[in-house]
Amino acid sequence: MNTKNYVLVTGGAGYIGSHTVAELVANGYECVIVDNLSNSSYESVARLQVLTQHQIPFHKVDLVNYNDLDRVFSMYDIDSVIHFAGLKAVGESTQIPLKYYHNNILGTLVLLEVMQAHGVHKLVFSSSATVYGDATRFPNMIPIPEECPTGPINPYGRTKLAIEEILKDLHDSDKKTWNFAILRYFNPIGAHPSGLIGEDPLGIPNNLLPYMAQVAVKRREKLFVFGDDYDSRDGTPIRDYIHVVDLAKGHIAALKYLDEHSQEGLCREWNLGSGHGSTVMEVYDSFCKAVGKKIPFEVVGRRAGDVLNLTAKPDRAALELKWKTQLDVDIACRDLWRWTVGNPFGYEMRGVRSTFFNNDGEYDSRLITVGKGSAFEVSFTNVGATIVDIEVCGQPVVLGFEKESEYLRDDNPYIGATIGRYANRIKNGEFKLDGEVFQLTKNDGSNTNHSAVQSYHKRKFLGPLVRNVDKGIYTVQFLLDDSHTEFPGDVLIKVNYEVNIPKKELLIEYEGILLNGNSTIMNLTNHSYFNLGAFHSESIEGTEIQIHASKQVELTSSSCATGKLIDIPQRFREKITLGPEDPKLDYCFVSRNEIAIDTRKNDLKTMLTAVNSESGLKLVVTGTDPSFQVYTGDFIHNQKYGPRAGFCCEPGRFIDAVNHTHWRNAVILTKDQSYGSKICYKFEF
Amino acid sequence: MNTKNYVLVTGGAGYIGSHTVAELVANGYECVIVDNLSNSSYESVARLQVLTQHQIPFHKVDLVNYNDLDRVFSMYDIDSVIHFAGLKAVGESTQIPLKYYHNNILGTLVLLEVMQAHGVHKLVFSSSATVYGDATRFPNMIPIPEECPTGPINPYGRTKLAIEEILKDLHDSDKKTWNFAILRYFNPIGAHPSGLIGEDPLGIPNNLLPYMAQVAVKRREKLFVFGDDYDSRDGTPIRDYIHVVDLAKGHIAALKYLDEHSQEGLCREWNLGSGHGSTVMEVYDSFCKAVGKKIPFEVVGRRAGDVLNLTAKPDRAALELKWKTQLDVDIACRDLWRWTVGNPFGYEMRGVRSTFFNNDGEYDSRLITVGKGSAFEVSFTNVGATIVDIEVCGQPVVLGFEKESEYLRDDNPYIGATIGRYANRIKNGEFKLDGEVFQLTKNDGSNTNHSAVQSYHKRKFLGPLVRNVDKGIYTVQFLLDDSHTEFPGDVLIKVNYEVNIPKKELLIEYEGILLNGNSTIMNLTNHSYFNLGAFHSESIEGTEIQIHASKQVELTSSSCATGKLIDIPQRFREKITLGPEDPKLDYCFVSRNEIAIDTRKNDLKTMLTAVNSESGLKLVVTGTDPSFQVYTGDFIHNQKYGPRAGFCCEPGRFIDAVNHTHWRNAVILTKDQSYGSKICYKFEF
Repeated sequence: MNTKNYVLVTGGAGYIGSHTVAELVANGYECVIVDNLSNSSYESVARLQVLTQHQIPFHKVDLVNYNDLDRVFSMYDIDSVIHFAGLKAVGESTQIPLKYYHNNILGTLVLLEVMQAHGVHKLVFSSSATVYGDATRFPNMIPIPEECPTGPINPYGRTKLAIEEILKDLHDSDKKTWNFAILRYFNPIGAHPSGLIGEDPLGIPNNLLPYMAQVAVKRREKLFVFGDDYDSRDGTPIRDYIHVVDLAKGHIAALKYLDEHSQEGLCREWNLGSGHGSTVMEVYDSFCKAVGKKIPFEVVGRRAGDVLNLTAKPDRAALELKWKTQLDVDIACRDLWRWTVGNPFGYEMRGVRSTFFNNDGEYDSRLITVGKGSAFEVSFTNVGATIVDIEVCGQPVVLGFEKESEYLRDDNPYIGATIGRYANRIKNGEFKLDGEVFQLTKNDGSNTNHSAVQSYHKRKFLGPLVRNVDKGIYTVQFLLDDSHTEFPGDVLIKVNYEVNIPKKELLIEYEGILLNGNSTIMNLTNHSYFNLGAFHSESIEGTEIQIHASKQVELTSSSCATGKLIDIPQRFREKITLGPEDPKLDYCFVSRNEIAIDTRKNDLKTMLTAVNSESGLKLVVTGTDPSFQVYTGDFIHNQKYGPRAGFCCEPGRFIDAVNHTHWRNAVILTKDQSYGSKICYKFEF
Repeated sequence: MNTKNYVLVTGGAGYIGSHTVAELVANGYECVIVDNLSNSSYESVARLQVLTQHQIPFHKVDLVNYNDLDRVFSMYDIDSVIHFAGLKAVGESTQIPLKYYHNNILGTLVLLEVMQAHGVHKLVFSSSATVYGDATRFPNMIPIPEECPTGPINPYGRTKLAIEEILKDLHDSDKKTWNFAILRYFNPIGAHPSGLIGEDPLGIPNNLLPYMAQVAVKRREKLFVFGDDYDSRDGTPIRDYIHVVDLAKGHIAALKYLDEHSQEGLCREWNLGSGHGSTVMEVYDSFCKAVGKKIPFEVVGRRAGDVLNLTAKPDRAALELKWKTQLDVDIACRDLWRWTVGNPFGYEMRGVRSTFFNNDGEYDSRLITVGKGSAFEVSFTNVGATIVDIEVCGQPVVLGFEKESEYLRDDNPYIGATIGRYANRIKNGEFKLDGEVFQLTKNDGSNTNHSAVQSYHKRKFLGPLVRNVDKGIYTVQFLLDDSHTEFPGDVLIKVNYEVNIPKKELLIEYEGILLNGNSTIMNLTNHSYFNLGAFHSESIEGTEIQIHASKQVELTSSSCATGKLIDIPQRFREKITLGPEDPKLDYCFVSRNEIAIDTRKNDLKTMLTAVNSESGLKLVVTGTDPSFQVYTGDFIHNQKYGPRAGFCCEPGRFIDAVNHTHWRNAVILTKDQSYGSKICYKFEF
């Protein structure tokens, strides 16, 4: 049981759900998302984590399965529920009404049953202005007040009204216990201003804005305007469009209202609309302004069921929830266009495959493969922001595991992982900072190596945010909020991978900033084990490496640094053919002697090259860091891999730099600075 | 797959469901009932079988379980569905609305999904006038036409309306395919004129008539009349009461309408009401007239939600369904009173326990125990209308099995079963009737014994109808429609058991009548094996029997009759102590020499007495038949029982009587006759 108070968000991976989660986190709420992903993508959750820099637990649960939902309620201390989950396509609902009733009504009933079983009694329900049906059938009901008689004209709307009635009946059955806020949405549009999350309709969009957006990116030929002979300013129908971020904020307002009134119990509905109607052509003009050009459209006949004007009377929400819209249609169009340009196919991305990487029933690690179907495929997962696999022309060139659980085993020798907060050794696990002595847990004899406690290689990173930034170039960004550790200061770590398919290059960029505290120490690297051998070779034997350095760090007897640099022995200055047992390398070589906390401005300098003559594969490791550890994997004792199954080249700061005055500035991170470095693995075949 | 066309009746064990099944069978429909028995009793189905003299398959299925329902649809060729199943207590629906929505709506959705999967597209839906809510809120809507706007005022009514909307939406999604008749019931009252089935409300009745009935039989103190200050003839509210038999007939009319219009598809609602309103006091007067005395009542305040007048406008049903009510409130009250008097506690009966006796998933055999909790318990099951157990003061005195499947095994030596159509031997399996020679299948060397094919001991009898006819006296009636066999003529068999607890007597009465054909042959008996031994004795050894006869039937070498009677050997005229192996008896003794097809007018004459000195139990077998076979069970070779585990006394007609002119009239049954006999097992302790 997680002891924080959670808001459970059903359908939280969807359009309105994801925007509401973003607002919830921004307002200090802890959220847990359940979603069956039938009409949404987990990518939105990964992006929400990056956007909010916050862990947001997710469970792939279909609400109609009591036991699955019950398990989630048992895992978290849930205070309230925001219920978005439901099928929502009006047109589809007329084709397959049974599915709509079954999914939407049963899902809600099971949710309420589980809430009842767990003593959770606050719920905000995602209803719709659709419950009013044609409000123009009554005199004086435009703008539409909550008192307007309901009368939905399609199965979708009828499921929403049926759920409203269920909530009312349940509240009536036990008035002081239940607290229901029913939010009747008008026309949500737009996207998060970050451009990271937005609406991602499957198939042909049903709504005006997503349709226009697809026309703008040429997925559709032209916009159809259904009738321009209505009695409006320009002849097209009037609707109440509301920015999805405003709508999301309405849920926070409703949740607060429920909190304030939960003593007496309540069940009440509020319109969430702007109160301002826009015609189809006005919205069209706004959107064209955002796009910067006119998009094609054609006026066709009126559509059955359409009426002149459906504008909200939002006074009740303003008065009671202290909520009103703040963003207009222009802003919504601008935000929609930003989202659309960045994600022309929504969360779907050519060449990217995402699946869950956890054990059954867990859903917070991804296996993201970028370049899927190309000659350069790279796979990542959240634990350790790890490189799980690199395949060059179909040949794997790094070690990796099949399951997240293997990465979490004690015998995992940091395979493919991000190493931090402090890579490599710290003598006696001890260092001074700002006049204070810090003692770390030791894990390597008398020293601390690669950080002993809360080592990044087993930490679950947030995200990733995957983007296709140019043709054949993808970025995969993971975040880690590394707070409350045995290191001084709280930091935010960004691990940004850039996969360049045509160049067969994987560029890694590390950034670390201080969130809390005066300063900290930091040294980040990636711990991939390379094996360029053909036929899934189990050993690095036969691969020829060349170390591009003339100096190395002099080691103490416990593999720490004396503080001196010494010449590399002659035999390691030439090409070295790795044998079955020798040479055994575990040394820190000098790439450059510049000392800085952010090395990203440096050129990428070649550190190591490796060639395997049988496979024909070649690796070039370059980086911006002053040094690099070369390790021939002689101490691997893992379930899957044995000694010399792969070799490492770990660029980073000099060994134990924190304890050597002349190196120390390379690892001390203070406020207003960024830690930074880049590493590049380039392959040739 | 059963090849007949079936009407599937959901909730067919309930009040309206069971009456509709009765009408369906009367109109030549084959029915299969599904019911979860959550608010009904299988007894109604057993009684329907007796009432209709027709097999009505039943499956204990909760509609929310897709797979269970799907299995039933796979077993029968279902043509159409009448959908009664649903929770229906208005008051309870306001207390536990979630359960009402979950059960009623999900049940319907699953039903429709299964129908769709099996290509079944005709459904009559049991809706309610409750969907109109307070029709008096509109001008000119009393009597209420189908056009009256809906507006249910409680969760129960809202589930009904939601289902109506689901049906309309489904029909709209595929208009030519689906055929839905929505029947909006007004106030169903009364019971079947047979008195066998009726309303059996659990808990405090919600409706006027069942409440009055319980007052009349003193289960409730007095009737409460909620308000006598309405603007009606006598100040009490007006409702449209409709005899449940009329209502049931409305379903037949709707089904026929669907059949006639199924080419074009339809979804239409019809009121089922009389069009005549009665006040509460008018109904009260009618009921008191039926009871023959005034029952106590008290006028109390109006009840929330009650309105003056809710009377149906039944014109649409009259015009389109050619249906209108034929029975008035007086008749309904008379029928209700008949049902109430015969079943003061509904289907529940003190001292009777009923459970299913089949294998898992099968629900058409009962284990009925009568006298449960008394010193004389008798258990029966449908297969063979078999006596499964007789316990005298807790001691079992007959052989019996634990499971139906054991009765259906080939090695079952007719234990406890009804034997027919022709008990005992027919020489060469051959007889002449009406000038024709009939050859039966032989199963006993060259003879036919106890009927070889479709022998009653493995036939599933209809019912039983259990009644508590007097203090400590119960009757248990099974029926068998024995048609299309290798015997001439089709017959209806009634097996009537009377359990007299204070007398420790089980009286068996057989009746057989010809349904089709000119004549047939018949000889019926019961094949109980007695074992009076203490401590669950496995042998009859030590029991002392006395045969009350002086003559016996002379046997041929194949144990058939020569036609002559001979004197009983002296040693069998005295008390015989049964030994471990001897004497071996399998003889037909003469009780009387009168030859008649119906012997029921005869006195019960003692045939055999038996005493076990260790247990102290005594048995007296008496009967009306001319002879009785005594058999010491020497040929039992059964999984559970071995030789001499029990002995039999089987009263009946002389061996092979059909082939002996002077005995023949005891077994020839012609039209306008009844076969009849009685057997009594009396115990003493």
